[in-house]
Formats: sequence, C-alpha cells, structure tokens
Amino acid sequence: MTATLLLHCPDRQGIIADITGFISKNRGNIINLAQFVDHVENVFFMRLEWDLENFLIPKEKITDYFETLYAKRYDMKFKIYFGGTKPRMAIFVSKMSHCIFDLLSRYSAGEWEVEIPLIVSNHPDLEHVAKMFGIPYHVFPITKENRDEQQRAMMKLLADNDIDFIVLARYMQIIGEEMISAYPNRIINIHHSFLPAFVGAKPYQAAFERGVKIIGATSHYVTAELDAGPIICQDVVSITHKDMPQTLVNKGKDLEKIVLSRAVQKHIEHKILVYKNKTVVFN
Amino acid sequence: MTATLLLHCPDRQGIIADITGFISKNRGNIINLAQFVDHVENVFFMRLEWDLENFLIPKEKITDYFETLYAKRYDMKFKIYFGGTKPRMAIFVSKMSHCIFDLLSRYSAGEWEVEIPLIVSNHPDLEHVAKMFGIPYHVFPITKENRDEQQRAMMKLLADNDIDFIVLARYMQIIGEEMISAYPNRIINIHHSFLPAFVGAKPYQAAFERGVKIIGATSHYVTAELDAGPIICQDVVSITHKDMPQTLVNKGKDLEKIVLSRAVQKHIEHKILVYKNKTVVFN
Amino acid sequence: MTATLLLHCPDRQGIIADITGFISKNRGNIINLAQFVDHVENVFFMRLEWDLENFLIPKEKITDYFETLYAKRYDMKFKIYFGGTKPRMAIFVSKMSHCIFDLLSRYSAGEWEVEIPLIVSNHPDLEHVAKMFGIPYHVFPITKENRDEQQRAMMKLLADNDIDFIVLARYMQIIGEEMISAYPNRIINIHHSFLPAFVGAKPYQAAFERGVKIIGATSHYVTAELDAGPIICQDVVSITHKDMPQTLVNKGKDLEKIVLSRAVQKHIEHKILVYKNKTVVFN
Amino acid sequence: MTATLLLHCPDRQGIIADITGFISKNRGNIINLAQFVDHVENVFFMRLEWDLENFLIPKEKITDYFETLYAKRYDMKFKIYFGGTKPRMAIFVSKMSHCIFDLLSRYSAGEWEVEIPLIVSNHPDLEHVAKMFGIPYHVFPITKENRDEQQRAMMKLLADNDIDFIVLARYMQIIGEEMISAYPNRIINIHHSFLPAFVGAKPYQAAFERGVKIIGATSHYVTAELDAGPIICQDVVSITHKDMPQTLVNKGKDLEKIVLSRAVQKHIEHKILVYKNKTVVFN
Repeated sequence: MTATLLLHCPDRQGIIADITGFISKNRGNIINLAQFVDHVENVFFMRLEWDLENFLIPKEKITDYFETLYAKRYDMKFKIYFGGTKPRMAIFVSKMSHCIFDLLSRYSAGEWEVEIPLIVSNHPDLEHVAKMFGIPYHVFPITKENRDEQQRAMMKLLADNDIDFIVLARYMQIIGEEMISAYPNRIINIHHSFLPAFVGAKPYQAAFERGVKIIGATSHYVTAELDAGPIICQDVVSITHKDMPQTLVNKGKDLEKIVLSRAVQKHIEHKILVYKNKTVVFN
Repeated sequence: MTATLLLHCPDRQGIIADITGFISKNRGNIINLAQFVDHVENVFFMRLEWDLENFLIPKEKITDYFETLYAKRYDMKFKIYFGGTKPRMAIFVSKMSHCIFDLLSRYSAGEWEVEIPLIVSNHPDLEHVAKMFGIPYHVFPITKENRDEQQRAMMKLLADNDIDFIVLARYMQIIGEEMISAYPNRIINIHHSFLPAFVGAKPYQAAFERGVKIIGATSHYVTAELDAGPIICQDVVSITHKDMPQTLVNKGKDLEKIVLSRAVQKHIEHKILVYKNKTVVFN
Repeated sequence: MTATLLLHCPDRQGIIADITGFISKNRGNIINLAQFVDHVENVFFMRLEWDLENFLIPKEKITDYFETLYAKRYDMKFKIYFGGTKPRMAIFVSKMSHCIFDLLSRYSAGEWEVEIPLIVSNHPDLEHVAKMFGIPYHVFPITKENRDEQQRAMMKLLADNDIDFIVLARYMQIIGEEMISAYPNRIINIHHSFLPAFVGAKPYQAAFERGVKIIGATSHYVTAELDAGPIICQDVVSITHKDMPQTLVNKGKDLEKIVLSRAVQKHIEHKILVYKNKTVVFN
Repeated sequence: MTATLLLHCPDRQGIIADITGFISKNRGNIINLAQFVDHVENVFFMRLEWDLENFLIPKEKITDYFETLYAKRYDMKFKIYFGGTKPRMAIFVSKMSHCIFDLLSRYSAGEWEVEIPLIVSNHPDLEHVAKMFGIPYHVFPITKENRDEQQRAMMKLLADNDIDFIVLARYMQIIGEEMISAYPNRIINIHHSFLPAFVGAKPYQAAFERGVKIIGATSHYVTAELDAGPIICQDVVSITHKDMPQTLVNKGKDLEKIVLSRAVQKHIEHKILVYKNKTVVFN
C-alpha cells in the first residue's frame, strides 16, 4: 500500500532534504516525488508518494507524526491520502448525456479508483443512463422558490452517502454558496469555453458571434464567483468560418467530456494542489 | 497569369452556376474555387482563381464586365486581383524583434509575393534589423502631444510609397482612427493572447494571474475598437503551473510570430473575406 | 429532403458550371458545395448537397438522369445519397470498451443518422455493454482452424441484417479479404498509432521503446494490406519521458475513441471520397 | 551564480534525501529540482540547480567532492555545469534558410546563453545570412571522393574554435561516424517528419503519397543510425487532402524551425539527459 502526501508551505532551504530524509530514515521507498517552487509567491509545493510496506511508522500515526515533526516547523498545509480507500464521487447532470456517458464508461471499465454511489439531476431526462449503469438517480427539480430548500435536501443526500467530491457533468444550475463551502475545491465543473473567454451562458453562441478560430473547454473547481474558480485543465479545437453554432456545440462536446474526465482523474489521483485560486497539477 | 475573384452577396439560387459558367464560356480554366454560404446571415462568399491564358475577355476589361454582368444583378461586393503585381506591405515595430525577423526571413527567402519598401517604428531600437535586410527604417517617436501630427506624417509616408497594407509586428502604439479608415481590413495586428480573453495590455501577466493552462495568440484586422477586429488566425500552446510570466512571454513569442505570418500569408494570397467583423478564410 | 452527390472524374474545364447549372436549371437549391482538384493526379472531386423540395426531376429518376447526362460525358464515378434513409452500421469489438461506449453513447443521444442493428465480437466480454444499449451481441470465437468458416458466418449475419458499413472498435482480429471485398471502403478501423509509424501489434510499447514525444491514433478504411488503407482522420497527444507503456495506453484511449467517432461521423455524412488509397474528406 | 547537476544512476532508496541534504547542509539554496524514476529500467534521473552564493564548497572543488561523496557510492553518471560560461555552438546549413534565420534571430535578440562562433555549409548559398549576423561562414563542398577529407577539415575547424555542440539546421549531408563519436549527444538534427514515420529523404513527398492527415517534425541527437537517435522534441500540424507536396514543405518549415529551436534551448539549459537512446527532457 502507498501513502500520498500533498503539501504547500512558505519556501525555505532544506525542506526537500528534510522530508525525503524523513521517508528514507523510516525505510519508506519513494515511488514518486514532484515538487515546485512558485518564486513569485515564494511558496513550496510537493507531492510525495511512498510505499508503506517497510515503513517504520504505523499508518494510523503517520499524519500525527508528520504534523508534529514537519508541518508545524515549516508552517505547512498538508494532507496525506492512503491507498486502498476509494473516494466517493457524486455526479450532477441536467439533460446532456455526453459527459456522464464518458465518466460512467470509464467507471464501468474500472479505469478509476473511485466509487459513484449516486447521480443527482434537476431533470428526469437522463434517468435511463443511470439505470444502464445501475446507479441511483435522484431528481431535484429547481425553481426560484425551492432553490434553497432543494439544495439542503441535496446536501443531506450527499452527506448521508459520505460523498467526498462532486462532478458537475454539464449540470445547468448554479451551485449555492453553502454547498460550495461544504466541498471546498471538491466540486469540479466543466465550462464549455476557453476561460476566461465567454464566461456564463451560451459560450458557443458567443464564440460564433465573435468569430474566433479556436474553441475550448475548461474544467475547474467551483468557487462562489461564477466560472472563476481555479482552472484544472483546458483543451481546444480549431474551427473555421464554416462552423455554425450547432457544429460548435457538437465539436465542443468531445472537448468537454475529455477535459472533464482528465480533471476528475487528476483529482482522484491526488495530483492537484490549490493555492490562491490557481492550481498546481502534477503529472 | 491568373486572376483571383473575391466576392460576397446575398445568397440566391444559381450564383455558382452563373459565375462558373461565365468563366468557362469565356475559356477560362478554373484553378481554385472555394465558396461558403453563411446560412445564419444568408450570405454567399466565393473565391475563384482562374487562368487568364486563353480567357477571351482582356484583362483590363474583366472587372468592368463582371461588374455589369453579375455584380449588379446579385448585389455583390467584389474585388479582382491579377497575378504578377506584388502588394506593397509596411511593417510597424517597436522594440521586440521576433515577429519582424520572422516576416523578413520569409521575405528574404522569397516565400511571399510581396514588396516591403519600408519599416516604421516609434523607437530606434530595431534599426539594425532593418539594415540587415536593406529596408529603410523610419522612426516616429510618439508622445501624447505629437500623436496626431506623427500619424499624419506616417500616413504621408505610406501614401508616398503606395503601401497596400500594414503589418503591426508587436507595434506597441494604438493606431488612430484616421489611419484605420484609410486602410480598412488592411492593417493586420498580432495580439499576444487568445482573444477575446485578455484584451489590452500585459496579457501574459493576466494569463499568469488567472492560472490558465493554455496561452494563445491572435492575428486580426485592426478596427476602431481595441483588440476587437475580425480574427484571422489563432493558435495556442499548453502551459503549466511552472510557467512564470517570463516563460509565458518566451513561449508566446513563437506563437505570435507564426500566427502573424500565417495571417500575412493569407492576406497576400487574397484568401480572406471580411463580413460584419468576422472573417472567411479560405485554405 | 436533400440529396447528396459524391463524384470524382478527370478534371476538365466547365464541370462545375455544368453540374451546378443542372441543379439550378431544375430548381434545386444548393445547400452545400465542396470541390477539390488534385492537380497532381488531375482529378476533380465534388460533394454537392441540394434541397429536393422544388426539384423538377423526381427523386427516383435523378441517378439515372445524372448518369446519362453527365457521368458518361465526364467519365465520372459517382453516388447519390438521399436524406431520410439511415445507413445500417455493425460494430465489431473484442475486449476493450472505450470505443464502443463512445460510439453507442452518441447513438443513444441521437447524434447520428444511423441504425446499429448488431454488434459482433470474438469474445463474450462486452456483452453487458451491448445489453445496456439493447443491441444484439453475436459472439464468433476465432481460432486458426475456424477462421474462414466464422468469417462466412459473420458475412451471412451482416448480409441478413442489410449492413451498409462496419466499424472496428478495437476489434483485435484481422479481417479476411473476402469480407474486405464485400465492403470496399466501408470498413472503418481505428489503429492506435500515428500511422505509418508503428504498424501492427503493440504500437504503444513500440512508441515507448522508440522514445517518441507524441503519440497518435489513426482511423482508416480497411484494405487487404494491414494498417495501410486510406487514412480518414488522425490526432495526437503530447507525452513525456514520464509516460510508461500503461499510461500511453490510457492516454491513447481518449484519442482512439474520438478519432474513430470522427471518422464514423464523416462516413455517415457522406463526406469521404476515396481515390487511389487516399481520402478526400470534406468539412 | 548557479550550478546545475545532471545525473542518472540505478534507483535506490535515499538518493534524493542524500543529495538534497548535501546541498542544504552546505548552505546551497535549491532553485530547481526535477527528478524522475524510470520504473521499467529502474534508473533514477535528476536535475538540480542551486545558488552558489553562500555555498560552502568552492566552485572548483564541487565536482570532485560530488564524485567522491556520492557518484561513486550510487554508481552515478553525472555532470555539473556552472552558470556564467556560454556553450559554443556551431550551425551547419545547406540551402534552406528558415531554420538558421530562426536560430540567429533568437541569438541576435539575446534569448540564449550561447556563443555562435561559426557556420558551416556544404554550399555557398546562405553566406549572405551569415554576413547579416556577422558570423564567419565556412564552405566545405562535399563529393563522394572528398567526404572523409572534408569531414576531418571540419572537425579541425570545430576543435580550433572550441565548439561544444553542433546544430544541423537542415544540413543535407550525412554526418560521419568519427564526428558523431567526437560529439556524443551533442549534435542536434531536425528531421522533417514525425519520426519514426518517414525516415530518410523526401519525407513530405512520402507523407503526401501515404495520405496522412497530420505532418510533423522531430529534433533528435545524431547517432550512427540515420534518423534513429534519441528524440528531443516533436510537434505536428494538421493537413488536408488539399495540401500538395509543396504546401507540405511550406507548412513543415514552421514546424521545423520551432521544433529545432526548442531542442537547442533545452540543450543550452542543460535540461536533457540521454539514456539508452531515449531522452529525459525536464521542463
């Protein structure tokens, strides 16, 4: 089994030597190390994965030891994840099926170390997809009046199912601040434009009207400001004057599903660190 | 020798048959035909290149005949270009040399059917580059006070040299409306972002601050509204959290010069039609 | 309803005028016209889509008229497709599910004008996927001994179901010449490399060993020579020294499914012409 | 001033801790650390850049200390480069100017920490380019008869000028084994295809004949086997059926110059490690 440490702290001399020394002195074998120093912010970021097989510190004490010995000294924010436990992911959808099919086909093929105990929607349209994959589908129709109430009901459902993170697979409702606060940097959205261009509704129409020659898609963590959270992944495809809004929608679908799935994979693999509305994404 | 016809008009039945019939009845051999119907605006666009060798209508009468026989009937905007005449291009620069080197190295290698009789700058810094290629370099320092006067002097210089179109190769001054009006859709700019993201100054700094994972460059015709003219060409390159503003600048340079040169080439080849702030770019 | 004409013939003066004249004289409204002249081979290619609503020639006589009036005169190979009839497509799979999920999720969402009456496999592994989408799944296990016999059985099944074209969605068996001859340029394969690099088995392992910095996928029509048929579509993704054979396989999956689906879409839309082992793909 | 350590060795526990400990114990400040473990070959690769300002070991003794204390123990191959010394680069060209213009315009703009004391060619054609940049141009015409003799003369010229590495900027002659042995992993070539596809002469013609939909360029170190050395960098561009061999050549030029310059930059920055005919390229 392996442990994965994600951390950031003010940059200082000797951190890497100290932490890698901690692992090797205790007979841990480092499998992957990635680090990065943001010389503008003077912040040190690290992801360290090591084999626990001969590690001298028992698994349940590692976080405590690390906190005491290093995190306090270096003023670190850190988290340690242990292999063998699958994070629990909820998918939110509305009416378009391309992203959820892409997510579930990977899940069904066993590509990801993840559990998907439930799907949430504001519409009944995609229940058949959930059924195909045998996953419970919960419909929460949203109106102006019931928005807050429904959000509380959704949050209860998520809590009851021990959901770790949420994937908005073209869910066409704004997430309320209460839910965002409950899942900080744990709600992944796909926006169908190359952010920060074309924030908000109907980005393909806007791209068409502006006459751009490339369209994009952006996966990001959801924050209180619409389409302004930390960007995880982006990709683009060339278009021409021949592309009408409808063909942009079609070309964009392929981008959206791939860019969303890449972000989900990075999240599941604990390869993303967030600092001040930006991400460090290790590969 | 060949002639190249560029046109657009309201879409109607029979246009292609009529125009291609005109060419073939008069023994012209069509070398390239590209057409496009914008079904949203209901506009027909066409580029037609044909061999004049056996063409029955004398070269100097073609435009007149076409105007009388077709353009009026179909309410066309059109232009006919004849091979063998090189358009005359002015380059405007400031202090960065990567774009001008790229343009002039292609010119020097004979890649383009174009004349470059002069280079204009608001700074003396790149005079050595102009000298290397043997092209006159004219410095017009710009201040708040002398802006209009200098622009008039520049326009006189352009007119005296029969300049057909202008390429802003990272020229860091805003072009005045008078000059824009004098060269409609004939001033090509390179903006160092993926427009419409990061309009205005310091786009790489803005991209860094937003934390995007891809940066871009955009070539476009200059209009009165800053960075909002018809887009000709765009390209992008992936970046990561490791990229600081300075490495973005360096990576961006390669994009900028290629994206600018592609636009210049399309312009020289008469492959661009502009309609309502958007371009049709034939390939 | 629309008709779509695909043709190629030796290039001669006046073809476009003649054919577009035929459409417009008979009150057909051209919706899309794309043509291309291969000046190396001196061959003219055309795709013409027109509205049949007011067309004076009855639908069932169009092919005959066109044959008599134009095809013979210009020595054309041509085919006319009429809207409203969905081509019938068979999918062949082995054990990997990413391509078939991508195809069927598009089919299920109604993106394509196509029928998928059956799925063929040499293994039982993906029967559950076929069941999810309610499509009959036929297993034909292949051994050295039964290869020819099984192929005849498969061909009978295809014929009984009026299959128009076949999509090999990572089907890991070689298609015999008899079947290839029965479906010329109507069997689409996805090869998991950037052809012609890494022909044959285990291209990701070969890419890893060569140390390339980009991997690709290629969709092509199947011909008698392995991985050497006319290429329809290719795409690539950057990799680094960090990518091991297994991560190449994973990154490649996303390429494969998108590149295969793009080819299927072009085929369904009648946008592909084949000439001498190369394709003309209109957009 | 900084020092840059490049190394590889059999992977073992504790290497990172040991080496980073060596730097921090001696008051070196690590500016960049990149490492990679090839779990297939079980080899550890590292690039470490640190500030020498307060480093306790004098610059001239660092290599010796490192050899004694770490390299022997871990069976390392390593090299330490010190800032402030510019590597000396020779450019070899034939008749095409796009790559050499790209290299020299970066050099002229001061983008690279490098000296270019001379240009070698088998043709006089590009002497004017060398003159523009004020760099001596040496012509060594090659025939079957004088090949070996000329190579010896070229090698003497390189040695007399203390050349560190060679850039083949579309130099259309095969480099002899003697020269390759003298500059192991220090001769950078640009091949105008997506290797390993289209090895050898006329790759654009071959790409045209095969009907590929993407073309590429590959920069690599030269080894005794033609076009088979360790790949440094690759890039591609989409093409269509409209592209004839000549337009492929033109589109390819932009790829070639960018892909070659990227490799040169990585080489100058000491970011490339070679192991068994493959590269580790840190970013």
